[in-house]
This record gives sequence, C-alpha cells and structure tokens, in this order.
Amino acid sequence: LDETAMRAARDRHDRLTKPRGSLGALEELGVRLSGVAGACPPPLPAPAAVAVFAGDHGVHAQGVTPWPQEVTAQMVQNFLAGGAVVNAFARQAGAEVTVVDVGVATELPPAPGLLVRKVANGTADITQGPAMTADEARRAVEVGIEVARDLVAAGNRCLITGDMGIANTTPSAALIAAFTGRSVEGVTGYGTGIDDITHARKIKVVHTALARARTELPGHDGSDGADPRVASAEPLAVLAQIGGLEHAAIAGFILGAAAQGVPVLLDGVIAGAAALVAAALARGARDYCVAGHRSAEPGHAAALWFLELRPLIDLEMRLGEGTGAVLALPIVSSAVRVLHEVATFDSAGVADKDAASPDGT
Amino acid sequence: LDETAMRAARDRHDRLTKPRGSLGALEELGVRLSGVAGACPPPLPAPAAVAVFAGDHGVHAQGVTPWPQEVTAQMVQNFLAGGAVVNAFARQAGAEVTVVDVGVATELPPAPGLLVRKVANGTADITQGPAMTADEARRAVEVGIEVARDLVAAGNRCLITGDMGIANTTPSAALIAAFTGRSVEGVTGYGTGIDDITHARKIKVVHTALARARTELPGHDGSDGADPRVASAEPLAVLAQIGGLEHAAIAGFILGAAAQGVPVLLDGVIAGAAALVAAALARGARDYCVAGHRSAEPGHAAALWFLELRPLIDLEMRLGEGTGAVLALPIVSSAVRVLHEVATFDSAGVADKDAASPDGT
Repeated sequence: LDETAMRAARDRHDRLTKPRGSLGALEELGVRLSGVAGACPPPLPAPAAVAVFAGDHGVHAQGVTPWPQEVTAQMVQNFLAGGAVVNAFARQAGAEVTVVDVGVATELPPAPGLLVRKVANGTADITQGPAMTADEARRAVEVGIEVARDLVAAGNRCLITGDMGIANTTPSAALIAAFTGRSVEGVTGYGTGIDDITHARKIKVVHTALARARTELPGHDGSDGADPRVASAEPLAVLAQIGGLEHAAIAGFILGAAAQGVPVLLDGVIAGAAALVAAALARGARDYCVAGHRSAEPGHAAALWFLELRPLIDLEMRLGEGTGAVLALPIVSSAVRVLHEVATFDSAGVADKDAASPDGT
Repeated sequence: LDETAMRAARDRHDRLTKPRGSLGALEELGVRLSGVAGACPPPLPAPAAVAVFAGDHGVHAQGVTPWPQEVTAQMVQNFLAGGAVVNAFARQAGAEVTVVDVGVATELPPAPGLLVRKVANGTADITQGPAMTADEARRAVEVGIEVARDLVAAGNRCLITGDMGIANTTPSAALIAAFTGRSVEGVTGYGTGIDDITHARKIKVVHTALARARTELPGHDGSDGADPRVASAEPLAVLAQIGGLEHAAIAGFILGAAAQGVPVLLDGVIAGAAALVAAALARGARDYCVAGHRSAEPGHAAALWFLELRPLIDLEMRLGEGTGAVLALPIVSSAVRVLHEVATFDSAGVADKDAASPDGT
C-alpha cells in the first residue's frame, strides 16, 4: 500500500470539521483505501460490481445439508431474473450483478449477466479424494483473476465477492481449519440452518477430508493430530484437495482486484475462506480486502481474525450470495466521501480545539 | 404496532428464496417496520429526512469540553453550506438535511435549510439550577413534534435524528443516568475526545447536576444515594432540570414520528438520551425507533440496552450530527426491499428444503 497516500489521508482526517478520530473505524478504512489507490482522496467505489461465483460440491453426497444440489442452478436462474436478495441489495446500493458459472453441476442456458467459465461440473467428494485436480484449481483461480480484470476494464472501481453453491460452507470450514489452525469444531457451523445431527455429521466430514488431504500433501507426515493445519503446504495444493471451484475463483478474484489496485469487498464465510487462500498465495492481497460483514458462521470470524480484518456490519446474517458485502458498500462509499467532500476547519471557519497543539494531543 | 402486518412479514420472510432466518437482524427489522406501517411490505424509507437539532448548554461554563461554545453556531453554518460529515453521508444515502435552531446561544442569520425555532439562547448551567423552565421544555418538545409533522407532510417516509451542541454529551449522561439507573461513572464518556482530567470533572459535574435536580423534583427525598434514578418523577420535569433543548426537541421528534406512524432512525448518545425521555412520556414510542448505530460513548450503550434496541452499525463512531443514523439508512432500505422485491420459492421455481415441514422445523 502507498504509505504517502495513507499519511495524506490521516493528515486530511485531522483537518476536517469533526473531532479527531470521531469517525472510528471509518477513518482507518479511508486511510487504507487511500493506500490501495495510491491517492488521497481515493476514488469513490463506484461503479461497483458484484460477481457471484457459482459451483457445486461432491461432498453434498455426504448429507451435510438438507438442500438438494439442484438449488445451486435454480438460484443462478433467480439471480439472473433479479429475484434474489443480492439483487435487491445491489439495486439499493447501485451495484451491478454478474453471475459466473465456474462449476455448477448441470449445464446452464446462456443468459445476459451469466458468464460461463465452467472448469468442471462440480467438485469431487472431498472425503473420498481431492476436490479437483491441480490444473482445475489453477484454472478456477484464473477465472477469478480474469473476471476481476474484465470488470475493472469495464470501469468498476470496487469489486464485490458473491457465491452460490449448495454445501459450500463444508469446504469453507475445511479451508479455514487448514489455513488458520483453528479446530474443526470451532469453525464448522450450521450454514444455512441445519439440525444438530447434520451438524455433527458435517464436523465428521470435515475431519475426514482434512485427514485424507494430509496424507496426500507433500511435506506432511499424515498424522491425524489435533492441529489440522496444512497451511505450510503449497496453497493451491490445499485448495485442490479440500476447496471448491467458487472458492478458487474468489481467491483469484481477490488477487485480480489487488493486481489492478482496486479494493475488493468480501462477503461471508466462503469469501473468508477464499481470502485465506489468496493471502497464502500473496500476503499483500489481504490489504486490498475490506470485510463487508461478519456472518453468523463461526469459521468466518476465525478467517477475519486470521486476516486481521474488521467487518463493517455484524447482523447475524448467513445468506451468502454477496449480500453482506453489498449491504456494506454504502458504508465504504461514505468513508471515501468524507475525504472528498467534508470541509476543513480553515475552509469552514470553524474553531479547532486542537489547532494550538499540532502534535494532535 | 400492527400484529397482523408483523405476522404477514414473518410469513413472507419464510417464503422468500433464502434459508429461513438467514438475514438475521434484518428480518426482525423488516417485521418491526411492517408493524410500524401497519402493512407488509411496509413503504420504502424514502424520501428520508434528517433533522439536525442545534442548541447550546450553560454547563459549558463548567469546563466539560475543550471546544468553544461558538462552534455550535459555526457548525450550523457548515451544515447549511453542505460541508459537514452529515451532509456527505446524506448525499450518499439520498437523505435531505434540515437544521433546526432550537436553542443556539447566538442569533443565526436566516438561510435555506435552517428552521429557526429558538426556544431560548441555550440552557442554563445544570450544576446551578434547572436547564430550562417547564414551559421551555414543553415548547422544545413541541418544536420536535412539529418538525416531524411537517417533514412527514412533505412526503418523507423516514425521519432521522441529528444533533449539534457543544457540551451536549454532559446533559446526555445526566439524562441517561436518571432514566436508566446506571451509575454516572458508567454512562459518562469522553465525548468528542477529552482528556482524563476533563473527564473526571465531567463526571463530577453530572453528579452535581443530578444531586441538585433531586432536591427540586417532587416525590424525591433529596438523598445523595448511589442510585441516581429520578425516572419516577414526571419525565418533562427531569428533562427541564438536567436536559438540553435539542434533547427535548429530539424527544418530540420521536413522539411526532410515532404519532404519524413513520419510523425514526436514531443517531448516537444524544438521540439515545432523548429516546429515553420520549419512551418515558409514551412507552410505545420506542417501537418506532430504529437504532442506527452504537456510538463509542458508554452512555449510548446503556440507553440502547434500556430501550432494548439493537444498533445496525457499530464502528466506534462518536461524531453526532446524525452521522451514525444516516449511515444506517441504506441498511434499513435494504431490509424493506427484501419484502418488496425478493422472489418466493414458488415464483422462482427454487426447491424449498422446508416446504415439507410447514411448521418451520
């Protein structure tokens, strides 16, 4: 990040007509976005585009969710028809919605707003073998990078992550356990709302997938110890073992945003898991991420903690699709507007209590 | 609130294409706004108007803040010029800003966007005597009621509280201690950012004001016990003893919104103190309040706790002006849009995992 721009933003915040520091976390956000853009004030995050990456999961066969797998494709149709919650939120926030089929199990008819970038017809069952091949993982990451590149080329100044994939909180939990070292029990939640029996099964499934993956990752001893961490392995190899195609694409989307110098607003637990992958591939990618919200899924809090990202909204949402990120977009815009539009003490003729102590005490 | 409309909103939430309950606190908000409007879906909260009630405080003489009193009038000019943070946030959220002079110490020149409704040239020093007369308190409440009435008559479907008044976190702390029974130390914060010596003085000032007020309120024994609660006294009498003119006006503004059946989005600690007064005058008024954010000021958390209001945003802001409330407006709009725009499982052709168990298990 550009330290000069960040310093300029801090200085500017202190001259604006408000008590110093009184915008709390919004000031830190404005400073970081200045660093991302290499300019103070940074550009307003508009236009903004949410990319909803859709994929299916072989682990669905293990009974980790009561939702049928067909719902992934059905919800893609709902997104394209404008009928999902992410569409309603995007209309409110003024963001455009693009759906990317990176791995839906069935063929989807071409439609406006749908990018067909299918790498595979869903992943394989992570309890039985790798989710995908190394080549598929790499290609799915590249899909995300390319979507980010194209959306920025189209003029977007803020990218927003979205996801759709029945069962995708299960590979998210596996990735989060692997990359943060937190316990499987601590990061595996109730997803869209499962019962306790399904939740117990889901925890067992994540354990099984991690134990299996460990035996296949180079440099690991294959022991089934308490620490599920596999993060010292090559991140793409971990992703291929226990991830999902939309996780891979979102990791690439984050890398693409960072490469273009554009902030990326993260949604919930799927984006959090993907951001761990992106940060493992390129540590600096984390600096371009803004956590839109904290979801009710416990693994998401673990991912945000590991990435040291503070969520802007915390309303116990657990819907995915990008909803929590899109909901936070006006807050990001507001933080940037402060640096563009608010008068200084000098320009407004307002007395500054700190003017006599320029060291800011 | 209209129970039928609230039931309809709950039913509708359960038929929309999302896992049940997955919008967390936004679903409760949509339900309550349906109850406020007596309709499901409730009207979108647009247009929305923020009223910034400005007043000065005699207790400023006790050295509770380093800011000169003139800053109240200077910031009013800043609001009218569009240069304050609340203006920037309002442009982002699409809200209109009106400034109401209910008690600024100096005369303000007439200007577009300024309503001159001055009840007094600031309050008296609450350590020395009542802040205002009973008649002034009543008139200031009426100012708020009338502003709410006029803004609703002008077509607004959401009212937003704002405030400006150097030293106004001091009477806020006094009101919050009085109405919630929390300790003075627990509700008196650093306001716009004071040092520890000033904070200690501010706590003493609030204690003095409360002890003095107790001796003047009928039905109290005048003892200086640990419990500063004076809430069993007549609320307007408490307000006149230790409040501020903008607190009184905001209390009226809340009552006016409730009377018109329009939701009122509350800002920080000044609005929280005023909402305690409004709820003491008419308990049902609380149901029309939406807490925009939780400020860094500890008394605000106490007020929200007492009113059982959950803030939508919690970013350690402590600026006032209405900033935290305006920032939350797009979240409120989004919660309402869900009930208007999101497809049902039936209409979108999406399989509902809960369809076979209509009791919602």
